[in-house]
Amino acid sequence: MYHLIIDCDPGHDDIIASMVAMAHPETFDILGFTTVAGNQTLEKVTNNLLRVQTLLETDYPVSMGYDAPIIKALEVQPKAHGESGLDGPILPEAKRTVTGLHAIEFMKETLENSSEKVTFLCIGPLTNMALFLKTYPHLKEKIQAIAIMGGAVNGGNIQLKSEFNIYHDPEAAKIVFGSGAKVIMAGLEVCYAGSILLSEAEEANGRGRASQLFYDLMKFYGRYAVDRGWDRTAIFDMTPLIYLLRPELFETKEYEVHVELNGEYTRGMTVVDLAKTEDLIHPATVLWDVKREEFIQTLFEALDILDKRYQ
Amino acid sequence: MYHLIIDCDPGHDDIIASMVAMAHPETFDILGFTTVAGNQTLEKVTNNLLRVQTLLETDYPVSMGYDAPIIKALEVQPKAHGESGLDGPILPEAKRTVTGLHAIEFMKETLENSSEKVTFLCIGPLTNMALFLKTYPHLKEKIQAIAIMGGAVNGGNIQLKSEFNIYHDPEAAKIVFGSGAKVIMAGLEVCYAGSILLSEAEEANGRGRASQLFYDLMKFYGRYAVDRGWDRTAIFDMTPLIYLLRPELFETKEYEVHVELNGEYTRGMTVVDLAKTEDLIHPATVLWDVKREEFIQTLFEALDILDKRYQ
Amino acid sequence: MYHLIIDCDPGHDDIIASMVAMAHPETFDILGFTTVAGNQTLEKVTNNLLRVQTLLETDYPVSMGYDAPIIKALEVQPKAHGESGLDGPILPEAKRTVTGLHAIEFMKETLENSSEKVTFLCIGPLTNMALFLKTYPHLKEKIQAIAIMGGAVNGGNIQLKSEFNIYHDPEAAKIVFGSGAKVIMAGLEVCYAGSILLSEAEEANGRGRASQLFYDLMKFYGRYAVDRGWDRTAIFDMTPLIYLLRPELFETKEYEVHVELNGEYTRGMTVVDLAKTEDLIHPATVLWDVKREEFIQTLFEALDILDKRYQ
Amino acid sequence: MYHLIIDCDPGHDDIIASMVAMAHPETFDILGFTTVAGNQTLEKVTNNLLRVQTLLETDYPVSMGYDAPIIKALEVQPKAHGESGLDGPILPEAKRTVTGLHAIEFMKETLENSSEKVTFLCIGPLTNMALFLKTYPHLKEKIQAIAIMGGAVNGGNIQLKSEFNIYHDPEAAKIVFGSGAKVIMAGLEVCYAGSILLSEAEEANGRGRASQLFYDLMKFYGRYAVDRGWDRTAIFDMTPLIYLLRPELFETKEYEVHVELNGEYTRGMTVVDLAKTEDLIHPATVLWDVKREEFIQTLFEALDILDKRYQ
Repeated sequence: MYHLIIDCDPGHDDIIASMVAMAHPETFDILGFTTVAGNQTLEKVTNNLLRVQTLLETDYPVSMGYDAPIIKALEVQPKAHGESGLDGPILPEAKRTVTGLHAIEFMKETLENSSEKVTFLCIGPLTNMALFLKTYPHLKEKIQAIAIMGGAVNGGNIQLKSEFNIYHDPEAAKIVFGSGAKVIMAGLEVCYAGSILLSEAEEANGRGRASQLFYDLMKFYGRYAVDRGWDRTAIFDMTPLIYLLRPELFETKEYEVHVELNGEYTRGMTVVDLAKTEDLIHPATVLWDVKREEFIQTLFEALDILDKRYQ
Repeated sequence: MYHLIIDCDPGHDDIIASMVAMAHPETFDILGFTTVAGNQTLEKVTNNLLRVQTLLETDYPVSMGYDAPIIKALEVQPKAHGESGLDGPILPEAKRTVTGLHAIEFMKETLENSSEKVTFLCIGPLTNMALFLKTYPHLKEKIQAIAIMGGAVNGGNIQLKSEFNIYHDPEAAKIVFGSGAKVIMAGLEVCYAGSILLSEAEEANGRGRASQLFYDLMKFYGRYAVDRGWDRTAIFDMTPLIYLLRPELFETKEYEVHVELNGEYTRGMTVVDLAKTEDLIHPATVLWDVKREEFIQTLFEALDILDKRYQ
Repeated sequence: MYHLIIDCDPGHDDIIASMVAMAHPETFDILGFTTVAGNQTLEKVTNNLLRVQTLLETDYPVSMGYDAPIIKALEVQPKAHGESGLDGPILPEAKRTVTGLHAIEFMKETLENSSEKVTFLCIGPLTNMALFLKTYPHLKEKIQAIAIMGGAVNGGNIQLKSEFNIYHDPEAAKIVFGSGAKVIMAGLEVCYAGSILLSEAEEANGRGRASQLFYDLMKFYGRYAVDRGWDRTAIFDMTPLIYLLRPELFETKEYEVHVELNGEYTRGMTVVDLAKTEDLIHPATVLWDVKREEFIQTLFEALDILDKRYQ
Repeated sequence: MYHLIIDCDPGHDDIIASMVAMAHPETFDILGFTTVAGNQTLEKVTNNLLRVQTLLETDYPVSMGYDAPIIKALEVQPKAHGESGLDGPILPEAKRTVTGLHAIEFMKETLENSSEKVTFLCIGPLTNMALFLKTYPHLKEKIQAIAIMGGAVNGGNIQLKSEFNIYHDPEAAKIVFGSGAKVIMAGLEVCYAGSILLSEAEEANGRGRASQLFYDLMKFYGRYAVDRGWDRTAIFDMTPLIYLLRPELFETKEYEVHVELNGEYTRGMTVVDLAKTEDLIHPATVLWDVKREEFIQTLFEALDILDKRYQ
């Protein structure tokens, strides 16, 4: 059982990851969501989450966090997620509101009040997570793990060698990877390994409420792959969540991960020290590979579970 | 009347600055202190402040902030301030305690509850100030001014071109100078211009309780100048406070101040754009020069006022 | 037929690469050698080359180049190549001397006097090559190709992400890759793909003069692999030379290659733009993979040819 | 007596400095000029020098050097010096030609053939000087001094903290300042201290051939000051030359000068270590101040001497 805070910037894949978590209350005790600027502005991503909760009839607490990275200026990603940050599905107006607590205050209160250790699923830029760790370092001992979608072993998507979530706030990433908390990193490679076939995504059409939301999200989110003639696309943020749910599907390795802050070509790169296998100071669990079919099957099982709730 | 939060890392000159503020309740409504790691560890500088308050029989709220800079590792300054961070005077054990609120939460509550705008006197590294501004940007409108001891127009003291408070946390300084809040910068040059003659400092010996504390602080703090055969020393942190109290003693200029984060020789340098005098985006009020004798006289007047309180 | 200048810092693998070139006069018209500080000091690597030529009874012109990188300080590699830079074989004293021309003057005169285009085999730091290109840019049109051992697609050997030859003089590498000359890059990955089995190297023992030199070189050079329990080792510098000789053994791809000059973790990294496949401004031919057995067979064939010369 | 090579990018102030040198054969044995890209392209600045020599009926050897900085791209300064790099005077077509030697080859031959030590007057970007020192380090012992116009103690002109000649090729400047050769630095401050009044420049009108050339140069070069309502302008490149001629007019100090290669705001800054006065590793003689009237008088005396040659 994970007592889970989902730190996110929804975002299509943020919502899909969250739905998988919601489908498994026996594994995930969702304590709340915290939002952060990234895929879109803080206001937009927060509103997206509230509207989805309205649609899904859930009422998890939502606390707003940082509206910009620590040092860099905010650069949102309308090409990937649309002007709303969640283009595609038709969502009801939000009948939910935020807690009024800042994300890091919500994190603080939640951890202080929890008798169990808490796990963070961080699927946006790491600004909230980093500044929580800086502000309340004594609460690190209440953290079971920080499961991140971010970085890459060799590749990049927003820059030649940098993945979006890390590049968006590299200083935050440096703080989190160097914090001493247990970090699980789902980088680009494992996310690509778990890509969904576009034909698989089609199968969700016309099923229940959750499947339909998934299908509508994928219609927009999958355009990038369709435009390039690819047969599949990665649902990035889902990867670390499914790792928590079904770790047996994954191959993992322990490495030290450094974050490059400088560099004309490499700012925001996660530099994984592949050569160092002993005496790791701050080891991160790097998700290395995943069994694709079981991974996608896990997604559809979750959608099925949710669909039944709304029948 | 300034409603004042003193953000500090005491530190000899922090305490002297604070005493001048305490002497003038008609000008300074001291709402509380926030502490930050810098001259010494967070624990030590906080304890120093509590012990001084015990000696001076004051009970301003004290809230602990960050124990390290945002990105850099903590490097304390035992050569300047001793192992305790306040070597020299014999202080009573602390009969005061901290609020339990983090510095940025104390700042938030204070500003939210204040009907008047609040002024910050920032005389340590800017970690607290920066992360307060990042975390609660909507409260910027409740800030009257941020008066900083930090930076330099041309010089440096901890590095060739970098002053200690800025160099200690350059990322924080960049956030504060670029925040859009009204910033007042007392850099090295104006602090040197207001230096106290060592012979003047001697005059405080044997007077009242505040003067004696000042004298004992200066005995340790002045060693650096004595060892070099200098006849005077700057009491850095006092400079922006006395500017608030007696601005007519100062010559000031408005400039944009950039903070260099990179640079082999220049990390932590405040790059003052002396050539740009119009269309300033984020102008800072740079204290340029001060009438030394009146400046020092202001210090002694404050000590006299305090001395009388303890008679 | 390649009219070849070998720019090198011998170095065990430099000598092996040179022997393969010497074995094939029908393909390689060796115009001369230029030496550069790298594996060892300029004096040592030059002396190594002169002694090897004495042993092999060759007399190619040798011109000394730069004794240090453009900006960085010299850092030699005694662990890899020994104190002499060519530890292992017992070599005669040098009965050859250098030309008296600086490497870049030798390059200039050679290209000016050549009616055919000239190819450079660059198997040390790129200092000579870069400053020749800077000093005599009009001679770029006389260059057929610059075949480099250096860089990596993803890995590193001297730093996490940096290969030795590039890391040693990153500014030089940036100049060469951005020069517009045709660049062939044999990075770490293809060199590893062509590794020789230690058992294969043993077979050279007791054969002729060239094979014996090869065997003696490998005895020292292979220690690194032996110490780690590996069954093979890469003979790095041989890779681009054999590519010129037998390109059909290689898989290649065209990419733009950037050189990172900054970066805490990435200075000296070759950043290969894998995503860009069209409209390349300065494409480099990146050697991607090699058929190992034929690659090693080519080496042994060359040694056989040479051995026969000394019978 | 200085045996002088003038390394320049003419440029109005380059020509004025050169004329002062030409006027004093008892002090300056001008061995030749080397040209470098800077104020304008290499072709233009070389042509400017040849045309001026045609006008002045001199025939000093001119050797072309580098057409771009070591790492940076070329950025010429048409605003300061016009499209030709020497706008203003009407000059005859060049009846002189270049030597055909590259600048660094000319330097090499000249130093090798000189029984006396040679002094360099470097009044453009330091590309030629740096790469000569890199290429022929053993000739450093034949160098008496390298007198540079470049850098600043505190100011900047092309960037907030960077002077043009250094900023144009910071890597070259780092090589020269760190070379161990005796360096004399005329930075912005001393150049400003020696500024000519625009009214003084007017006095040259209608005198002899040299004065008229000077007057015509100043008509264009002085526009920048005129447009800003200033009463004077610095003739930068003249400063280190007049220092060699009349050192008694100058106040100097010895410092280590570092060159910042990184830095968002400080790339190309000369970081003068004002605090270090002992055990200097590579001391530079920093020209600190100059007696303005005698400085300008020296200029006019030189023009008078030249004028008489053409009567």
